[in-house]
Amino acid sequence: MFVSDCLGVNDQGHLTIGGCDTLKLAETFGTPLYVMDEEQIRRNCRQYRASIETCYQGRGLALYASKAFSCKEICRIVREEGLGLDVVSGGELYTAIQAGFPAERIHFHGNNKTPQELEMALDAGVGRFVVDNDTEMECLDRLAGQKGKVAGIALRIKPGVEAHTHECIQTGQNDSKFGFTLENGEAFAAIRAVQDAPNLCLKELHSHIGSQIFEVEPFLLATEKILGLMTRAKRELGMDIPELNLGGGFGIQYVPADQPVPIGAYMEKISQVIAEKCREWGLDTPYIYMEPGRSIVGQAGITLYRVGSVKTTPAQDKETGDTTRTYVSVDGGMTDNPRYALYQSEYTVVAAQRAADPAAERVTIAGRCCESGDLIQKNILLQKVSPGDVLAVLSTGAYNYSMASNYNRIPRPAVVMVRNGQPRIVVQRESYEDLIRNDI
Amino acid sequence: MFVSDCLGVNDQGHLTIGGCDTLKLAETFGTPLYVMDEEQIRRNCRQYRASIETCYQGRGLALYASKAFSCKEICRIVREEGLGLDVVSGGELYTAIQAGFPAERIHFHGNNKTPQELEMALDAGVGRFVVDNDTEMECLDRLAGQKGKVAGIALRIKPGVEAHTHECIQTGQNDSKFGFTLENGEAFAAIRAVQDAPNLCLKELHSHIGSQIFEVEPFLLATEKILGLMTRAKRELGMDIPELNLGGGFGIQYVPADQPVPIGAYMEKISQVIAEKCREWGLDTPYIYMEPGRSIVGQAGITLYRVGSVKTTPAQDKETGDTTRTYVSVDGGMTDNPRYALYQSEYTVVAAQRAADPAAERVTIAGRCCESGDLIQKNILLQKVSPGDVLAVLSTGAYNYSMASNYNRIPRPAVVMVRNGQPRIVVQRESYEDLIRNDI
Repeated sequence: MFVSDCLGVNDQGHLTIGGCDTLKLAETFGTPLYVMDEEQIRRNCRQYRASIETCYQGRGLALYASKAFSCKEICRIVREEGLGLDVVSGGELYTAIQAGFPAERIHFHGNNKTPQELEMALDAGVGRFVVDNDTEMECLDRLAGQKGKVAGIALRIKPGVEAHTHECIQTGQNDSKFGFTLENGEAFAAIRAVQDAPNLCLKELHSHIGSQIFEVEPFLLATEKILGLMTRAKRELGMDIPELNLGGGFGIQYVPADQPVPIGAYMEKISQVIAEKCREWGLDTPYIYMEPGRSIVGQAGITLYRVGSVKTTPAQDKETGDTTRTYVSVDGGMTDNPRYALYQSEYTVVAAQRAADPAAERVTIAGRCCESGDLIQKNILLQKVSPGDVLAVLSTGAYNYSMASNYNRIPRPAVVMVRNGQPRIVVQRESYEDLIRNDI
Repeated sequence: MFVSDCLGVNDQGHLTIGGCDTLKLAETFGTPLYVMDEEQIRRNCRQYRASIETCYQGRGLALYASKAFSCKEICRIVREEGLGLDVVSGGELYTAIQAGFPAERIHFHGNNKTPQELEMALDAGVGRFVVDNDTEMECLDRLAGQKGKVAGIALRIKPGVEAHTHECIQTGQNDSKFGFTLENGEAFAAIRAVQDAPNLCLKELHSHIGSQIFEVEPFLLATEKILGLMTRAKRELGMDIPELNLGGGFGIQYVPADQPVPIGAYMEKISQVIAEKCREWGLDTPYIYMEPGRSIVGQAGITLYRVGSVKTTPAQDKETGDTTRTYVSVDGGMTDNPRYALYQSEYTVVAAQRAADPAAERVTIAGRCCESGDLIQKNILLQKVSPGDVLAVLSTGAYNYSMASNYNRIPRPAVVMVRNGQPRIVVQRESYEDLIRNDI
């Protein structure tokens, strides 16, 4: 019925998540509130493991991309499910380590890691440094040498593949701030440069073409290009690079029109391409990594808001032709979900107390920030709502909490995890005291 | 030479702010770093006071709109300069109160104040509640009654005036989530409704047409419309509304092409219109409020970054025709300045160690977040820079710190205030420990 398996409607017509009544959650924990279904997260993790098991003889590891949603508890869950972790900053690494995540299963990403972060990651013993550029390579080699270590590295390669997604989250094309360009020889030069870096060991080539992608083709194309580079490294430099990182970017369902490729189907096709090309080019089939973030946590999360006011104003809507607009103002907004303001992202919104009713009225959901751009959705169909009602915005498990701000000095909401009908807080709501903690 | 008076170049060719060498600041306090010139902030405050003194016989008060930049120290500075304060949330109110700001000089704004916030503001004794909608009016009346208080209120009116600015920060048009519509009689009905609210006292009408506005005309038009509504209230309801709030939105200079109206010129024209219309319509000239935020702190602030890597990649730039792009990656980004990602805002960028040199190369300044949209500026001219250099992005005093996030779990930078060549920290840099403080 909804975009996520973990959602339902109970006897009272209320929306449920993981067996919990969302109205009760809103009452118990307050609003705005992020709620995530732990079982769905675990199912998603297992699906990645199973697909590697089935299609690739288990010779791979899915790394949860923690930039989608990072906190100590998600690191514990991912660890328990046997996945690895992708971190992009000292802060994400710190969070993982504090949660007891094994450092050797962590990949450290980023187009501009600071020397302090590289030292921190060397000291922690992270499994792979995904090196983005020459400056980083030199710096990491020097620091590793100072510490008497050899760092296992991947090289981030821009395969020159354009994924069909929002420009802001497209990363595989040549004109990107990330990685070494394949097409102009920069990537090959980087591989050669590792040979002269005594404290680095090249384990892996990495490509990531973007986010929220619904097609398999660009992934296959990127994979083929990276395997081609591995072949060249083997033939011209005699280097065997044993691992291939396929990146992430698997799309999820925000609205019914979104049609993600099932992970099993993706893995089947990728595995075929790898097997074929390796046979053709005389390569050993590499160990693989994948980096799902959004597809692990996105659809497992919702955000609950309480409606403050409902007002209908004169308007001239060019899309709909409407001469009025009904603004439904909620007690959160671009502070807890900046994705509409940033990318005009689509979401499904449900009135939690009449979740089974048809959505009958066209409304615009506005946030509470002092900014006109602070909208959650424009021109969506919703059940009739009044002040005091609870709204649920679906598929907010990824890039909502992680991108949240304190704009207007609004405290960030709590994150509640539900499992088998039992809710528990995993990130506490910020207090006013938290907001001024660093003010002198 | 630059867009701000507080900036200069010293003997070594280094950029200075408030007499401090920015390279030394970067070294002492680390990067990224927000730096603000206290003298410039104070001068801006005084300019508003002086213009009210000169053009309006001192019968008004400028309220600093703290959503532009809120922390305890800015509240103290604004208090010392004799301004009032505009807050838009419980968090901004809490900050002001903790800094000892007199509550009676605070206006409480927002399109969706929660009942908890209204109670907090009633208890604190804020001077004015800027009531946005009917639901809030009823709630505030009830809560004030329960506490045996009478709340002094303003009504936020949409005058139906379109300011020429970015759609996301345009607020005076009818199709806006803010306030009561003038044109369809809703605003007049709201005035009448206050007569039936025993615990509310209507003191003021308020309009705010948007942000970063460079023309006086729309302000004059809005003022005339609000005075017209005051006249109707007087004639038809016998109500004298003694105060007029002109809102804020005064543009500042981000790049040389921005040409703000001097505040003195604005006040002169506004005062003339008020005087004329009041004479014509038989009104007493009202006490006035203004709500400058950006124009108090924006040009007083800069952000310092350190360059991590510089890379040139193949590209096909449609605007410039360039076939390569040079990405200069810095150690901050959309986490400390989301305005480019949100509005494609323009900024001036200067290489701090060769600030007097001509800007010779076209570059794109990229942030360090794992997101392609994480740019600070695209296609700007900059002095030649190398890894390790310090960059200054100018006019970042408003809506940078206040909109900052912990995306990618990147700690928010410190804020340093400089005065007479002496720097001091006013907001401490976030620690990794801060990031996981609320994680269970």
